[in-house]
Amino acid sequence: MPSLGGSGKRLPLLASPGKSDAPMPEQKATNIVWHAGAVTREERERLNGHRGAVVWLTGLSGSGKSTIAVALEKALWTRGVRTYILDGDNIRHGLNKNLGFSPADRTENIRRIGEVAKLFTDAGLVAVTAFISPYRADRDQVRALMRPGDFIEVLVDCPLDICEQRDVKGLYQKARAGQIPEFTGISAPYEAPLTPELTLRTAEQSPEESAAQVLAYLVARVIVSSR
Amino acid sequence: MPSLGGSGKRLPLLASPGKSDAPMPEQKATNIVWHAGAVTREERERLNGHRGAVVWLTGLSGSGKSTIAVALEKALWTRGVRTYILDGDNIRHGLNKNLGFSPADRTENIRRIGEVAKLFTDAGLVAVTAFISPYRADRDQVRALMRPGDFIEVLVDCPLDICEQRDVKGLYQKARAGQIPEFTGISAPYEAPLTPELTLRTAEQSPEESAAQVLAYLVARVIVSSR
Repeated sequence: MPSLGGSGKRLPLLASPGKSDAPMPEQKATNIVWHAGAVTREERERLNGHRGAVVWLTGLSGSGKSTIAVALEKALWTRGVRTYILDGDNIRHGLNKNLGFSPADRTENIRRIGEVAKLFTDAGLVAVTAFISPYRADRDQVRALMRPGDFIEVLVDCPLDICEQRDVKGLYQKARAGQIPEFTGISAPYEAPLTPELTLRTAEQSPEESAAQVLAYLVARVIVSSR
Repeated sequence: MPSLGGSGKRLPLLASPGKSDAPMPEQKATNIVWHAGAVTREERERLNGHRGAVVWLTGLSGSGKSTIAVALEKALWTRGVRTYILDGDNIRHGLNKNLGFSPADRTENIRRIGEVAKLFTDAGLVAVTAFISPYRADRDQVRALMRPGDFIEVLVDCPLDICEQRDVKGLYQKARAGQIPEFTGISAPYEAPLTPELTLRTAEQSPEESAAQVLAYLVARVIVSSR
């Protein structure tokens, strides 16, 4: 059942005229005669039947982040979990289209994605991000934005030579030919997380198995229910 | 029932080994052996039982945008509609904390908010934005980002003298004293929408009535159900 009591840091609850069950605090602003009180994150989560969180996939190009994100999204959706993928398709061409690949722009890229992931988490969704996000400090900044437990850092771990051998988008070949400057793993660093919540060894298991591993973690942390 | 058929512009559906009911198109990438197919916006909306959209509240400081947003959020949530408010609290202090109030920064502020609102709409939520958003061109840019019908521009219409008389945050007094440069309505322009989807006359009706007016519009456009 919805609670009418407002909480959080918005305007205080003012009672609605005619709803005499509600407390009637002294009214300070004369032109605000009615205020419903904000819906809290917890109320949104109750409506959804699961918690909000961000699953932050990090790893080399070609390690399998996007494929795992899509498999995870499907697995969550079939369980009725509200989820949304943030990836290059909908971020680099939209919110972050005015950013390039310099270190400063990469940092701002990840900062904005982190802020958006935080909004989705607050909205009660499980956000799944699929970005290389090569710098440890950038990812730690995102972690610091969130409540403890909300940020689930997942290392999509695949040896560089296998990523390069796959070369799904042909980017490694271009990077080796010097046609892409500052390419992570070739001409720019990748700083793997030291203590990620999860590590997925994608050279040894299918994307389906990796998605199942993340799902099991979400169940274990009571972010989503065990069916 | 969830459909397993992927659609949209992501990677094509590749059949899962062992799931022989699914079609088996020629497999082009040798290292992607399984792909669940993306969850579409329509599938998310089916799960939610309503459509995604953005209710874009625009108007002077003190016109009632935030109060209406909160009342609308509550009214939607009690109907089981997934909704999220984007406002100064969660945007100016987060995603857009590196922006000021110059015309260029205001434009970038609204651009980013528009992109985030688009993501929420794509995620199947009703996003409610509460920003002055004074420039017509900026709002029109946001409209252009979205599918027709997704962007619901709502003029929160209140005469300047009444906003200034309310002065809930004491900002008009500071602006008149020259302590706040480029203050909309005093020392910076407000360009009202010419053909908004809705106009709320907040000097003449309560926030509750304004929220009900928006809700009626959403029902009429079959974005949310009529109970």
